[in-house]
Amino acid sequence: MSTTTAEPKGAAAQDGGGIHRFPDSQPLRLDSGAVLAPLEIAYKTYGELNEAKSNAILVCHALTGDQHVASVHPVTGKSGWWERVVGPDRPLDPGRYFIICTNVVGGCMGSTGPASINPETGKVFGLTFPVITIADMVRAQAMLVEALGIETLFAVIGGSMGGMQVLQWAADYPDRLFSAVCVAGAARHSAQNIAFHEVGRQAIMADPDWKSGAYDAAGVRPEKGLAVARMAAHITYLSEAALQRKFGRELQRDGLSWGFDADFQVESYLRHQGASFVDRFDANSYLYITRAMDYFDMPGAYGGVLANAFVKSRHVRFCVLSFSSDWLYPTAESRDVVRALSAAGCRASFVEIESDKGHDAFLLDEPQLDLALRGFFASAAQLRGL
Amino acid sequence: MSTTTAEPKGAAAQDGGGIHRFPDSQPLRLDSGAVLAPLEIAYKTYGELNEAKSNAILVCHALTGDQHVASVHPVTGKSGWWERVVGPDRPLDPGRYFIICTNVVGGCMGSTGPASINPETGKVFGLTFPVITIADMVRAQAMLVEALGIETLFAVIGGSMGGMQVLQWAADYPDRLFSAVCVAGAARHSAQNIAFHEVGRQAIMADPDWKSGAYDAAGVRPEKGLAVARMAAHITYLSEAALQRKFGRELQRDGLSWGFDADFQVESYLRHQGASFVDRFDANSYLYITRAMDYFDMPGAYGGVLANAFVKSRHVRFCVLSFSSDWLYPTAESRDVVRALSAAGCRASFVEIESDKGHDAFLLDEPQLDLALRGFFASAAQLRGL
Repeated sequence: MSTTTAEPKGAAAQDGGGIHRFPDSQPLRLDSGAVLAPLEIAYKTYGELNEAKSNAILVCHALTGDQHVASVHPVTGKSGWWERVVGPDRPLDPGRYFIICTNVVGGCMGSTGPASINPETGKVFGLTFPVITIADMVRAQAMLVEALGIETLFAVIGGSMGGMQVLQWAADYPDRLFSAVCVAGAARHSAQNIAFHEVGRQAIMADPDWKSGAYDAAGVRPEKGLAVARMAAHITYLSEAALQRKFGRELQRDGLSWGFDADFQVESYLRHQGASFVDRFDANSYLYITRAMDYFDMPGAYGGVLANAFVKSRHVRFCVLSFSSDWLYPTAESRDVVRALSAAGCRASFVEIESDKGHDAFLLDEPQLDLALRGFFASAAQLRGL
Repeated sequence: MSTTTAEPKGAAAQDGGGIHRFPDSQPLRLDSGAVLAPLEIAYKTYGELNEAKSNAILVCHALTGDQHVASVHPVTGKSGWWERVVGPDRPLDPGRYFIICTNVVGGCMGSTGPASINPETGKVFGLTFPVITIADMVRAQAMLVEALGIETLFAVIGGSMGGMQVLQWAADYPDRLFSAVCVAGAARHSAQNIAFHEVGRQAIMADPDWKSGAYDAAGVRPEKGLAVARMAAHITYLSEAALQRKFGRELQRDGLSWGFDADFQVESYLRHQGASFVDRFDANSYLYITRAMDYFDMPGAYGGVLANAFVKSRHVRFCVLSFSSDWLYPTAESRDVVRALSAAGCRASFVEIESDKGHDAFLLDEPQLDLALRGFFASAAQLRGL
């Protein structure tokens, strides 16, 4: 039941954030051995940090997400990408929690990335930007959380690549976590995951306007290549059943065109996905972030035994969620994570949510996801004394 | 057990064929209303037609296949694409059957297609080539079969798009068929099928060397776009399990490159698939043939009831085969075909072959496929008095 007379639920509207610039004396040391300095991290916050600094939640975004988790996107004008989860009366209510979302390093919404100025040359990084990893993204987030004066996060939560960051947080900063929620994630990228990303990268690099990554200096953008990359990726976010239910073989017009116009609604939808994506995303960022995901291999980093990643995380309360029709990061990947957590002696709750919406279900209207998150956070908040 | 002393098994080596040119008086009337004349159909034959002309088998190729089903490919120098099925001591033995394989209309290995000369302009068709359908392909095959003096085919068989042609044959020319074998096919293209094809088409059209289809006149070829299209499609031909088993996260070299070289073997494999494909395939043909597949909708053509397509095929012996890990044309699609055949009163045997090789299993070493085909053809041949 919604009411129109209810008092505003606390600090929901008071979102903050900006760009945090770390001085050269606080560089980001990357897994590759390279160093980023100065480092800038763009972030948004919602709600207020309580006096005990015990109510902070870090939300980690997916491949093409950004810090605008619950507020209007400055480029597209669309609402935040996870307003189903973050917002007044939502599972993560800014009236109760202090919610932080950062743009990942390598991104294109304000954090240092390939479109930033390389201080050594005074020119845009382009391909001189160092390759980054999921652990680098997490390291930068940890620096920001520390800069905000927060010793321990009440929770870190994310879906897809955000879920990978959650697992990396648990491995690298267990002492700074109370709970961790990994939605539709995986502990490493499979051959098929890598293959789809490689198609997207090749589509970008095949565009002559990519210019070996130096398109900014040439005053062009590889929009066609990036659009194709997005289209290919978008199919992997949906299940076959969802595509069939949503579009089937429905036509755009009466009858076929007998040509190469978008005859089918699914074609038109995909073209729109591609075309609108290039307005808000940078092609080189797409290369770097997909690379980070492909390099992600937590079992590999821990001698082939994923459980070893979590032996210091026994005090962390884990929640792992997957979707039954997700074929990009299937439930089996989440089960592997849960098994490793159990083997490491961690407490982990696991729910496979029945849904035919595919990987994208984590962003969509899924009441079971709401319920699972509400239940988990209610219990964790009680334990945390919130 | 193989032996080196065995006698050659009849006419295996005696392959024939060529290009059959139909005069202008025998045009191909297309579903679009357009007419192709003169029509040329490139084909190969293996074995000899018996006196009763009762032992002819038509093999239908898939999207990127051609007439070289069991002989060395003139461009790549590789062996025929279905030598596992067609050849001495194989299920379709040229010592016993007269095997015909045609390049589909719209193709690029000799049959009339977008790379042919448009007789009205004297220039390469390019995008002035009319959009074709699976039924058009079958109509052209029927013309060739008739020209070869064959009234009734002992069998028509094909995998993937070849399986679609088989179903179309049964609907359009039931009186000219004794048996029909549909492998890893479907009676219509799903939204996901269309979506993947649209990504491929957009990749080709995004290549500036495509030049709105008129690349031939410009002396260029949209190789990068076509390679990306092939890479995206190739992933759909394999199962996740097959990719994982074949490549996993195996690296090309010791250690990561920390760049955008092909670090992972699966990347290198995909790049090779893309690069080698453009040597043997025409980009416009890829557009036209994918379009034909997307337009394929037998239930739609029969008032939404697939069974109606087969009411005149009750004398045809059907065999429908699918592979358990095929997610491009999943077993459910084959089951729909079998259900429709049963509803129409046709005799249909159906086998779902357990395989983790994905859609490509129909081209690979699958002993269960051999067994199923041998069993079906042994029984059908006996009934046919062969």
